[in-house]
Amino acid sequence: MSELTATGVTTVTTPDVDLSALFAPRGVAVVGASRTGTKLGSVMAQALRAFGGPLALVNSRNPDPAAGLYPSVGAAADALGEPLDLAVLCVPAAACAGALEDAASAGVRAALVCAGGFAEAGGDGVAYQERLVAAARESGVRLLGPNTSGFLVPHRRLTASFVPGAGEVPAGAVAVVAASGGVNHALAFLLADAGVGISLAVGLGNGTDVDAADVLEHLASDTSTAAVALHVESVGDGPRLYEAVRRLTRTKPVVALVVGRNDVAEFAASHTGALATSWRTTRAVLRQAGAVLVDDERDLVDAVATLSRSRLRPAADPGVGIVTAQAGPGLILLDALRGAAVSTPTLTEATQARIAGLLPPMTFQRNPVDTGRPGETFGEVLTAVATDPGVDVVAVYALAELGSTEQVAAAATQDVPVVAGLGGRPAEVRELRHQLHSTGVPAHLSPSALATGVAALVQDARLAHRAQHADEAPRGGVAGLAGRSWDEHQAKSVLEALGLRTTPRRACEDEESAHEALDALGGPVAVKLLDAAVLHKTEIGGVHLGVRTHAELDDALAGLRAAGASRFLVEAMAPPGVDLIVGAHRDAVFGPVVLLGLGGTQAEALADVTMRLASLSTAEAAAMPDELLGAALLDGWRSGPRLDRAELAQVLRALGAQLLADPGLESIEINPLRLTVDGLVALDAVITTAED
Amino acid sequence: MSELTATGVTTVTTPDVDLSALFAPRGVAVVGASRTGTKLGSVMAQALRAFGGPLALVNSRNPDPAAGLYPSVGAAADALGEPLDLAVLCVPAAACAGALEDAASAGVRAALVCAGGFAEAGGDGVAYQERLVAAARESGVRLLGPNTSGFLVPHRRLTASFVPGAGEVPAGAVAVVAASGGVNHALAFLLADAGVGISLAVGLGNGTDVDAADVLEHLASDTSTAAVALHVESVGDGPRLYEAVRRLTRTKPVVALVVGRNDVAEFAASHTGALATSWRTTRAVLRQAGAVLVDDERDLVDAVATLSRSRLRPAADPGVGIVTAQAGPGLILLDALRGAAVSTPTLTEATQARIAGLLPPMTFQRNPVDTGRPGETFGEVLTAVATDPGVDVVAVYALAELGSTEQVAAAATQDVPVVAGLGGRPAEVRELRHQLHSTGVPAHLSPSALATGVAALVQDARLAHRAQHADEAPRGGVAGLAGRSWDEHQAKSVLEALGLRTTPRRACEDEESAHEALDALGGPVAVKLLDAAVLHKTEIGGVHLGVRTHAELDDALAGLRAAGASRFLVEAMAPPGVDLIVGAHRDAVFGPVVLLGLGGTQAEALADVTMRLASLSTAEAAAMPDELLGAALLDGWRSGPRLDRAELAQVLRALGAQLLADPGLESIEINPLRLTVDGLVALDAVITTAED
Repeated sequence: MSELTATGVTTVTTPDVDLSALFAPRGVAVVGASRTGTKLGSVMAQALRAFGGPLALVNSRNPDPAAGLYPSVGAAADALGEPLDLAVLCVPAAACAGALEDAASAGVRAALVCAGGFAEAGGDGVAYQERLVAAARESGVRLLGPNTSGFLVPHRRLTASFVPGAGEVPAGAVAVVAASGGVNHALAFLLADAGVGISLAVGLGNGTDVDAADVLEHLASDTSTAAVALHVESVGDGPRLYEAVRRLTRTKPVVALVVGRNDVAEFAASHTGALATSWRTTRAVLRQAGAVLVDDERDLVDAVATLSRSRLRPAADPGVGIVTAQAGPGLILLDALRGAAVSTPTLTEATQARIAGLLPPMTFQRNPVDTGRPGETFGEVLTAVATDPGVDVVAVYALAELGSTEQVAAAATQDVPVVAGLGGRPAEVRELRHQLHSTGVPAHLSPSALATGVAALVQDARLAHRAQHADEAPRGGVAGLAGRSWDEHQAKSVLEALGLRTTPRRACEDEESAHEALDALGGPVAVKLLDAAVLHKTEIGGVHLGVRTHAELDDALAGLRAAGASRFLVEAMAPPGVDLIVGAHRDAVFGPVVLLGLGGTQAEALADVTMRLASLSTAEAAAMPDELLGAALLDGWRSGPRLDRAELAQVLRALGAQLLADPGLESIEINPLRLTVDGLVALDAVITTAED
Repeated sequence: MSELTATGVTTVTTPDVDLSALFAPRGVAVVGASRTGTKLGSVMAQALRAFGGPLALVNSRNPDPAAGLYPSVGAAADALGEPLDLAVLCVPAAACAGALEDAASAGVRAALVCAGGFAEAGGDGVAYQERLVAAARESGVRLLGPNTSGFLVPHRRLTASFVPGAGEVPAGAVAVVAASGGVNHALAFLLADAGVGISLAVGLGNGTDVDAADVLEHLASDTSTAAVALHVESVGDGPRLYEAVRRLTRTKPVVALVVGRNDVAEFAASHTGALATSWRTTRAVLRQAGAVLVDDERDLVDAVATLSRSRLRPAADPGVGIVTAQAGPGLILLDALRGAAVSTPTLTEATQARIAGLLPPMTFQRNPVDTGRPGETFGEVLTAVATDPGVDVVAVYALAELGSTEQVAAAATQDVPVVAGLGGRPAEVRELRHQLHSTGVPAHLSPSALATGVAALVQDARLAHRAQHADEAPRGGVAGLAGRSWDEHQAKSVLEALGLRTTPRRACEDEESAHEALDALGGPVAVKLLDAAVLHKTEIGGVHLGVRTHAELDDALAGLRAAGASRFLVEAMAPPGVDLIVGAHRDAVFGPVVLLGLGGTQAEALADVTMRLASLSTAEAAAMPDELLGAALLDGWRSGPRLDRAELAQVLRALGAQLLADPGLESIEINPLRLTVDGLVALDAVITTAED
């Protein structure tokens, strides 16, 4: 048990992922190929013609070896005298397993199956998929698909995709890892339109073998990839995906778009045959792993385009310096950055003095710096802002003209990048963007796109800082919770053993001892039904608050008896404050997680909660309150108590450690955990175990 | 008073706005023009060279009549023998007033001043602006600016702008009305890049004379404009802007971007010299006027581009049919539409049967309809969805190929438009978009852009439906509220006179009468300090709830005395429920408004409120709860009470009517107004009057 605790989810073993046969094959065979027609085997053969290495077309029904159409992969490999690592199987679903076995026997180590009609279609497709996956597993062939439009590696001129135009996507530094083949291509084309090239773009389709975690592991050592765009619809192995993202983000930024905020489960299931994963939990875990989160595919493009060219030093709260040639777009930019909780610190007196010597008076020079139309001093202004001690990245917007792109590039330093936004004639701004990109400056074509890119840099730097300052996963816990039930009194003893604060209380077997408890504790007290089998006391009239006198206590006890109580809990009342909900439970996909939410009906209606994997660092736990909509309530709202984040982190880590240490423990919930002037106090506790 | 009530804000008189001299001038004079150089007078003369009508260059310091450089506007008009309606003043701020007077004396009726250095710069600029505005007012010349980059009317080849490339913006059906010259041009260029042309694009700058309301009034009769993009930073005359938007949206859709969600006031003030208007109130009022709201400039472009080509029939809840050739992008589209609260109804059995005959089995066919790659039946599928009785608009997405654009266009009917989304090679999708646009089908280049466009159509149709079903503004009210103060007891009597429900209560002058009241009302009661001068009773210990016995009452009364009470209110307790805040007050910019929010500390921390002008229709009032984050709490959350929207509308309209009827009344606030099983009950009330 303690082993489990000591290492938490980091016990997940990650196989050495070698996808070189798939993404860097020495030779490629198209099985079911034809030289003519519009069917898949023909389209794939066409798309792969540009591939630099050996390409074998295989057609067992109409072979024509003289024309380079071989009867089998083995025959093709023999004839070519070259290893064929990848087989692109363009045969019907029912024939795929056999074709894969045939290819494997000829030395193929990876296969792509684009066809649909497998598990996502139901019926016979389920069996076809099972057979195909079994064939891959037995032969050791890595399988991409089925039900995907394929993948692209432009650097290798490898277009294993049937989508028209896919071969024209330019090579570059962004890798796309998409759940869906359609989204993969849509993103590749949108990135191309944003002036950004691709190192790898892959759609996972049904993801029966090669999944997102595999590709992310592969990308860690892929030198052509500088940043990763991740599109997620559902997650199979949650801890493994977490681990893959966490490892990758140490060296390369990852931007993640998780689909399914709203109820789209029915359509999603028809799509890949997978059940929808909790959108909220998936996002929380990906962020914990270091991924920058975005809300739609355009933001994904803007964010990853920026991060593929720049990455900030890890920092708790990077400062953005804004330089704008027009106040109106600058205001949109500032509003968007403030909305993303990005800091735009006032420039130092020294920087302001320097800028005052460069710009006419009466312009705004504190941050943003409003230059008016770019003139001779534009580059110097940029440099002044970039060298301000509070500035970690400069966002510059200009309409129609941006001085010389050299001025902009010159202002960027190794430590403080510049990100540009441009407005103007479409052709002209594309050309300027191209020039800026060639000097390493990320450039966007609208104020909001610029804001998205800069916010992504900031978010990435914050997450990296948090990762750098991570302490060890929480350990320890109370032994022997599993296999029995826990009433509130006992559950609170467990919390106390975990270091949490409660109020003085007495478990009472009868009315007499309850009256003694009132005398001992002094009024007012809370009087509650005490029964491990009753999880929702309040709803059945099992809680009486503010009981001061013995007469009131008699009334309360009579009420509890009527509600079915045979035992009572008498407890000192806590001071007023702000009620939180904290808990730990086992997520079906991600395993042990901890949760923080605001208490009360309204917060529940808003589902104002945030979560983490249970193995969270103190820095992670301390960051959780900021993600609540009602976060302001925790920072001295209306002269109320102020949350000590270290104390909350300790609570969350203790609950997480307990769940990690104790496989028989299902969940612990504290609702409410009250924030008071005396700190956090647990006012109720429910522990459920596997035997419950 | 009753006159005011009867008409509400519709009493605002709207002058006949004639901006033809500005936007459709017969001739144009550039004052301060030169033939060479890079200064404003030269750049403007260059930009205006393409103008079709007479163009006069005026330079009083270096005139050269032989070369067409006249000493004065009058001399130019005489020499050309043509009326010069518009003067573009390219002289320093200090000289603008004189130049305007000179131009006016030569028959000029409109002037554009681009220069900065006026009120926004402070110092002498304030006086320059005052003089310029006075000169315009005295001469009757309509003035655009100062401090703007100008405007464009591409249909007339009229480029009164110094921004490079502005003259290349294509003519089209979208009018841009922007607070900022920079944003105006940024939007015009972004629209051009989206394949959308401009009918008019104007930046208001300091907006000293011609303001947004003027331009919107002008656009109502501008036949070249089909839809309007409105960018707002601050509002001077709120009711007039509301009225202008309300009138315009009857015939043309308006999409509005309001900047300033976050704290950007300091920078904004430096920009145009105007104080920031409440972002929240401005948005609420524009929506009430019928404008579709968006969050950033890209959504503004997508929304107005769509609405310039299609507009749905007014409908309470239009249904969207989704057809997608790839499930992944379709899922992003569906997720985005659901997030925008757009309905995607299940297709009828008949439509599903029809589609089942057109597509392979096992694809999703209920809505969305997942077609797989567009084949021969693609057009028929589109037509089947478009003719489904529940479908008011079809959203279609396809990657790389969209069948024939004719198929798509053919599916659109007069009543049910089709909006397309395309992914693929950048050049190719732009060409396809162009083809679709030429058949009247709005087209976008990403799933989210498509979702934004479709959601804008739906929002516009809902607002139009609400406007069609608007009853008269609320009338009447209680006379004589102004000029005195109101304690809670009296304020509740006012609410009762307005038709609201309260709980039985008694105002008590002393302890004895309070005890009588307890006997009369029965326990439990609320006992409160009763004093018109105390607005926040709870905070000073002025409220005791749940008082049941005379002993408890004595305690409570003693506590109230200690808190300073000389009188008491004893009141029956209301049943439990969900607490709301409703109120009416006078907004500094928009006048009388009503407000609805969720009660409680959490809702306050979230600022979970929505508002309307006080002259709101029943349909408007009934729509307000949907805009609250915690709206779910009002619809039977956890078996709780369910809000009767008609009842709430009556409350809000009654408060609005009272404020409209009674100029001496400052505000009425009911906090809380409790939603109970018995309906809405006012538990506290505060009335403030001008004399307070």
